[in-house]
Amino acid sequence: MLVSGNYGTYTEEIWMKTEKRYQIIPITNKIQEIISRSRIVDGLVLINPMHITASIFVNDFEYGLHSDIMAILNKLAPFFGPDGEMGTEYLHHRTGEDNGDAHLKRQLLGHQVNMPITNGVLQLGPWEQIHYAEFDGMRKKRILVKITGIIGDE
Amino acid sequence: MLVSGNYGTYTEEIWMKTEKRYQIIPITNKIQEIISRSRIVDGLVLINPMHITASIFVNDFEYGLHSDIMAILNKLAPFFGPDGEMGTEYLHHRTGEDNGDAHLKRQLLGHQVNMPITNGVLQLGPWEQIHYAEFDGMRKKRILVKITGIIGDE
Amino acid sequence: MLVSGNYGTYTEEIWMKTEKRYQIIPITNKIQEIISRSRIVDGLVLINPMHITASIFVNDFEYGLHSDIMAILNKLAPFFGPDGEMGTEYLHHRTGEDNGDAHLKRQLLGHQVNMPITNGVLQLGPWEQIHYAEFDGMRKKRILVKITGIIGDE
Repeated sequence: MLVSGNYGTYTEEIWMKTEKRYQIIPITNKIQEIISRSRIVDGLVLINPMHITASIFVNDFEYGLHSDIMAILNKLAPFFGPDGEMGTEYLHHRTGEDNGDAHLKRQLLGHQVNMPITNGVLQLGPWEQIHYAEFDGMRKKRILVKITGIIGDE
Repeated sequence: MLVSGNYGTYTEEIWMKTEKRYQIIPITNKIQEIISRSRIVDGLVLINPMHITASIFVNDFEYGLHSDIMAILNKLAPFFGPDGEMGTEYLHHRTGEDNGDAHLKRQLLGHQVNMPITNGVLQLGPWEQIHYAEFDGMRKKRILVKITGIIGDE
Repeated sequence: MLVSGNYGTYTEEIWMKTEKRYQIIPITNKIQEIISRSRIVDGLVLINPMHITASIFVNDFEYGLHSDIMAILNKLAPFFGPDGEMGTEYLHHRTGEDNGDAHLKRQLLGHQVNMPITNGVLQLGPWEQIHYAEFDGMRKKRILVKITGIIGDE
């Protein structure tokens, strides 16, 4: 169905501070609240972490799966602390950082998502849930939410 | 070149049911047909699987490569059935599911794409083809196609 | 904040030719220049490589990390030349190509990005930088930049 109307954009930043270094947090409700505030009723919502050691991804809201995601990412791009047992450090650590794994994990999981808005709500499949994945947490970070589309009647 | 006009959105769902559990299906023509139906001639098309054990991706329409994609994903996130030979199951399987690998594969391959529409058609490079990758098939699933942009003259 | 105005789109292609087969090139400034040329002041910019052996990604502009990215991708999807030491070739190589690894690396790193434009500029976090990753270079390739949003006053 073709829908038309006045075009607008709405931008809001969300602040996050996880309790753990590695953590997955569901944010679907938060995104829907921002959509409702935006007055945009049909279009797209871009959800983009503004930090490069975190991901936004869509998958099942199921804690076992969340652990599986962290486990596979750690197998593919392991954490090597300053005294990594394997004696191998990422070249990125020459800068003094110890979060090389976080930069890599965020790429493998996926950086950002764009989701559809129809009739004022996220148009989701039955199990689609939006999540924030943090790979270098315990400090304040931002997510950008940018909504573009048709402005609803007041 | 800057193009302007009346803004509209068009939303359509595609149903898929693959014959095999793991399968890659080219959908470029199907997406172009929806764009033609939409009357939107310039903008973006978001192609988003509404199920979390499938991917939309853009790559070569070449069956050898499609096998290579499935092989590498199975190396990185292997299938462990209920009686997995390695004795290791994903934690997700505690829910009774056996598709933990599918949730992970869809993240590694990539979840969704946004493609450009110019002059009424997908603006693609010479080898860019849009595909649906199914990792837990043989049942009905949906893909959401959301087009946003300039409405063409009637 | 809700912003409204006349909707427009702007499309431009960038040509790239890397010096090496595998190379990462920062393109944030180039994208900002195109945004400035477009006269679109608020909306989205889609940055999409038009070739299927390259990625656009957002991460740190730090050469150690860039080497780490290439290293992990080569671990996960190794290059096997025509005389690969492991005696294993990708099925894609039956076509006569030797770039099977490049097709896979581009999927693992991520294919494309959409970034937000606010007040005429890319709205980026402190370390977000846009990069082009080439996995089969030394030949001319294109990136599509598609900007959609509100047209600014002249």
